Amino acid sequence: MTTSPQQDSRNRTEVVVLEEVPGVRITRDFDAPVERVFRAWTDPDQFRRWIGPRDLDTAIEHWEARTGGSWRYAARRHGEEIARFYGSFHEVRPNERLVQTFTWEGAPDGVSLEVLTLEDLGNGRTRTVGLSVLQSFEERDAMIASGMETGVVEGFEKLDELLTEG
Amino acid sequence: MTTSPQQDSRNRTEVVVLEEVPGVRITRDFDAPVERVFRAWTDPDQFRRWIGPRDLDTAIEHWEARTGGSWRYAARRHGEEIARFYGSFHEVRPNERLVQTFTWEGAPDGVSLEVLTLEDLGNGRTRTVGLSVLQSFEERDAMIASGMETGVVEGFEKLDELLTEG
Repeated sequence: MTTSPQQDSRNRTEVVVLEEVPGVRITRDFDAPVERVFRAWTDPDQFRRWIGPRDLDTAIEHWEARTGGSWRYAARRHGEEIARFYGSFHEVRPNERLVQTFTWEGAPDGVSLEVLTLEDLGNGRTRTVGLSVLQSFEERDAMIASGMETGVVEGFEKLDELLTEG
Repeated sequence: MTTSPQQDSRNRTEVVVLEEVPGVRITRDFDAPVERVFRAWTDPDQFRRWIGPRDLDTAIEHWEARTGGSWRYAARRHGEEIARFYGSFHEVRPNERLVQTFTWEGAPDGVSLEVLTLEDLGNGRTRTVGLSVLQSFEERDAMIASGMETGVVEGFEKLDELLTEG
């Protein structure tokens, strides 16, 4: 379970480090309809505005959010590139499901398979459940140790702000 | 470990159902250099000639074997389509490593992440190790129960024949 500090909100980010499989499950509710949340995950101009921790910016280098497409972006701090990531869009099922691969170029043999499902909670609210599974527990634990959780929690807070903008 | 009948050969297919992660590891040696084996995995006209069990044919519908590319093919028995599969090429690292996603359209929520590594054994021989990891043990066990192993063993025997042709 998450221990990171989070803003006061009814929408908290739950990070569960799985015991049975080498993965992490991240659950988060948003005060926006499914279509709106899905667009924030698949439109590159929206995605770059919220992904990652607050002290980093994202520069999209390639983005083709369709089944069989791929993506690549860099993370920058004060304009200086500090990390690059890339992967594929295995499946883009609008407003329901997004399946991607993910590699940080600093560990080029590590690959995560990420399945995001979106659930309509009614009243214009949406639950997202993200399941990331790696090839070994060592890789999973290294991902946790990298400070991933802070980036996820802060990113979702930025996403709240973006969704509020309308 | 594999129990399927296999042709008399020094190159046997070892199928290990993993205990720790929801995956399968398949190891196989081939009497051909790394470059030749890699081409048989990435060239669609070669790949379709050996993939799958002996009683099926493969019709490639889409094939873009590059990092960020994707693929799609159908399996046919006596000309009749019986299954379709699709996925992405997350990474194509020539003669070393191939990372793909894999979905059988009959179970569209199931996704396997497949990492193939090629090792030069010297004397014109190559070892391939394929690690397939799914999102749950249930999905992994369903994949085993589907008769996957027969297809793998027979496919590699067809690949032996293709490699012998030169």
